[in-house]
Amino acid sequence: MHGTDYYRKEFLDYLKREIRTKEPENLYSPISYILNLGGKRLRPVLALMSTEVFGGDYRKAFAAALAIEVFHNFSLVHDDIMDAAPLRRGNEAVHKKWNINTGILSGDAMLISSYGFLEQYDGIVFKGLVQLLTRTGIEVCEGQQYDVDFEAREDVTIPEYFRMIEYKTAVLIGTALKMGAIIAGADKGSQDLIYDYGKNLGIAFQLQDDYLDAFGDPKTFGKQVGGDIIGNKKTFLYLKARELASPLQLQELDHMFSIIPQDPDSKINTVKVIFLESGAAEHARKEINGFTQRAFEKLTALKIPEDKRSVLRAFGEELMGREV
Amino acid sequence: MHGTDYYRKEFLDYLKREIRTKEPENLYSPISYILNLGGKRLRPVLALMSTEVFGGDYRKAFAAALAIEVFHNFSLVHDDIMDAAPLRRGNEAVHKKWNINTGILSGDAMLISSYGFLEQYDGIVFKGLVQLLTRTGIEVCEGQQYDVDFEAREDVTIPEYFRMIEYKTAVLIGTALKMGAIIAGADKGSQDLIYDYGKNLGIAFQLQDDYLDAFGDPKTFGKQVGGDIIGNKKTFLYLKARELASPLQLQELDHMFSIIPQDPDSKINTVKVIFLESGAAEHARKEINGFTQRAFEKLTALKIPEDKRSVLRAFGEELMGREV
Repeated sequence: MHGTDYYRKEFLDYLKREIRTKEPENLYSPISYILNLGGKRLRPVLALMSTEVFGGDYRKAFAAALAIEVFHNFSLVHDDIMDAAPLRRGNEAVHKKWNINTGILSGDAMLISSYGFLEQYDGIVFKGLVQLLTRTGIEVCEGQQYDVDFEAREDVTIPEYFRMIEYKTAVLIGTALKMGAIIAGADKGSQDLIYDYGKNLGIAFQLQDDYLDAFGDPKTFGKQVGGDIIGNKKTFLYLKARELASPLQLQELDHMFSIIPQDPDSKINTVKVIFLESGAAEHARKEINGFTQRAFEKLTALKIPEDKRSVLRAFGEELMGREV
Repeated sequence: MHGTDYYRKEFLDYLKREIRTKEPENLYSPISYILNLGGKRLRPVLALMSTEVFGGDYRKAFAAALAIEVFHNFSLVHDDIMDAAPLRRGNEAVHKKWNINTGILSGDAMLISSYGFLEQYDGIVFKGLVQLLTRTGIEVCEGQQYDVDFEAREDVTIPEYFRMIEYKTAVLIGTALKMGAIIAGADKGSQDLIYDYGKNLGIAFQLQDDYLDAFGDPKTFGKQVGGDIIGNKKTFLYLKARELASPLQLQELDHMFSIIPQDPDSKINTVKVIFLESGAAEHARKEINGFTQRAFEKLTALKIPEDKRSVLRAFGEELMGREV
């Protein structure tokens, strides 16, 4: 087994060989651009790692790793249009550097290309990978739609919120791992366990991201702390606080989520106090631990050599290792 | 063998059974909407017809027919956003009835779903269909990009124009027919011949559409005659006229394509005279006949029973039967 840094480097070498700007340039240069913006390459690394975990040669998973990375970037390009986000990984988003039409069309081409990369596989491996990409792709679209819908709704429930983050982000983590299992020829039960490991870890990670957005250390969080509060985002903390709040806290929370003050610091602090005093923050930590536990239980149930289980466990611990 | 009306009715029954609005409604109701706007259902009809031509049961092709129809509608939804087109088949375009974000996301879900419908097939049929959809999908994106690029370019060549219409519209006709051949288990040579039949017919049809836009009978054409001239579109007629025009004609043509007059009739008439006198109109008729001939040569080369060849020939003649 290798470490994540090794897989990342191997994948980046493969990416460099495979992604070249072709004609028509206005279609393909935005694709090269977004794929070269960096990022942790989490999903391709997981696909390579999982292949080795189940006894396959990680190099057999390069094409699937590229498929999932290109799929992921397609969804970023289209989401950035929908969210009117000007930046992606500190650089101009595709629809800003070019224009919205270019973002739409290059995204479409990326989505189709992700299926193209899977053509390297045959038989039931090919069909398994294509089916998985399709099911996950539909769920990612549904998750994005729920996210959009939630902005206009006042009655979002916590189960609905969990489903939204599951579809929008967690299933793609499970998919990356399951692709490796399919390529290595693992049995159906193992495929499902590794998928559930990734999915639960993905939900835990997203919940933790929500939590750290309010309570993280500005020095290590990497994003603006309080960003979700400023943007009146309906995260777990907000939904749970509304559920648990006293009438007075509820009134104050609703007021805070109806204003956009010039200086947000007092709003952020007021909301954080409500998150803490209502018990929502504690509930969030419980849910993060719960999903993380569920992930590790799936891992324990997998029939794989202990040294390989350790690699997967180390990955999960590293991912969740930021201070809660 | 059945006729096109029969296949169309059979396909519409299947479509009604398969396409239901699911949750989240804001994602799926635009999909039901666009798929129920009507249209000739040319591509699904061709997929069913082709399956029977090669000795298969047309009902085996329902899922592939739906895949190609949903793919086609995905491209319409995204193209209408890019072209800022308010109407589709006389009704509001998806991005007008809802909004641009809904158009993007519903289109994405349609594109992914079109792969999903192919899961009904197995083995080399499944792989053949997925590969074909991917290759064609990429070409459709490239064709759309060339179309966008051409608007800003003054040096578009006729071979470039042919490639654009081939990718943007003709390959999907060839693909519908080839899908039937794959499903029926036809040999590779036959698959390629039926694809080329559809592709050449598609190019001829698009060229004829350009021609009729200028010279068609307003009573039978179905669209506004002169629409391309009003919109300064770089069609075959325009490109060929610029190639053949005398210096005086060229000057006049360039002037006409630089103005947007309140009353377009005089512009339309002036341009039509240049199209005729430069010889561009005659060249267009020659090219239409040339591509139609090439299509029918492919048909002749196919090793299929004569009654089946007749059905395909009748289809082509009907498609091209509008007066030129």
